Amino acid sequence: MSIRPATPSDVPAILELIKDLAVYEKAPDAVKSTAENLHEALFGADPKVFAHVVDVDSKIVGIAIWFLNYSTWMGTHGIYLEDLYVNPAFRGQGYGMNLLKTLAQICVERGYSRLQWWVLDWNEPAINFYKSLGAVPMDEWTVFRVDGEALQKLGTSTK
Amino acid sequence: MSIRPATPSDVPAILELIKDLAVYEKAPDAVKSTAENLHEALFGADPKVFAHVVDVDSKIVGIAIWFLNYSTWMGTHGIYLEDLYVNPAFRGQGYGMNLLKTLAQICVERGYSRLQWWVLDWNEPAINFYKSLGAVPMDEWTVFRVDGEALQKLGTSTK
Repeated sequence: MSIRPATPSDVPAILELIKDLAVYEKAPDAVKSTAENLHEALFGADPKVFAHVVDVDSKIVGIAIWFLNYSTWMGTHGIYLEDLYVNPAFRGQGYGMNLLKTLAQICVERGYSRLQWWVLDWNEPAINFYKSLGAVPMDEWTVFRVDGEALQKLGTSTK
Repeated sequence: MSIRPATPSDVPAILELIKDLAVYEKAPDAVKSTAENLHEALFGADPKVFAHVVDVDSKIVGIAIWFLNYSTWMGTHGIYLEDLYVNPAFRGQGYGMNLLKTLAQICVERGYSRLQWWVLDWNEPAINFYKSLGAVPMDEWTVFRVDGEALQKLGTSTK
């Protein structure tokens, strides 16, 4: 087993795991992404999103997809983990933990002050796992999102 | 009044507004950032964080500090708004709204699918304002954070 940065040939397997995660998150039709735009995002010019994979005998069984955030308070970047997923047939072997450790190691090496991600409130097994690692729920905060028609409207209205 | 991308000479004024926002968020001592590292983050080589300002007669009275996120479901980038703040003496004139519109416009122009930010749960005036723009609270989700000693420990433990 190795945890390593993704390479272009991993893209189809990564996309499959993204789709599996969407099913687990009860949104089976949510993935509009294609292998082409995932490839462009991860391996195009000056990428802004990154992936690490769990490689077991050349099979990709886990992914961490992440990008940089920034803390105006700390004055440093941090890592925001967008997707963390391990194929259910390969759970219980510490792969998820090792993906998190790999990202934490990048934070420590680069002087990033925070590693963050978000979790569905009903996903108790994940929440308990994260708390066991010293992660703290930011319970006071709620993320707001504008997308779709509301974003179009806001972005094209006169100022 | 103009809303425009920040320039290097805006850094001291931006930092003051970051500090004012921390006071409003009941964390007056939270800002460790300095003018030097804010300048480096915004205007160093290949910046990963960006700022727009509200400029009223050459006085900076509002800021939006943001970076790119990425949706694995949509296969596109989006904007994550880290800080939005308007000097209280200059509120009620639509500056906050116009900062949000500016970011929404960037999303529309670049094909980004989402504009996101987070809000303290007790900040009802802000929450009502955001809902009036079509923003939706992602109530099902909680952000987890590892930082400080827990991050060091996670990042230096053996895998």
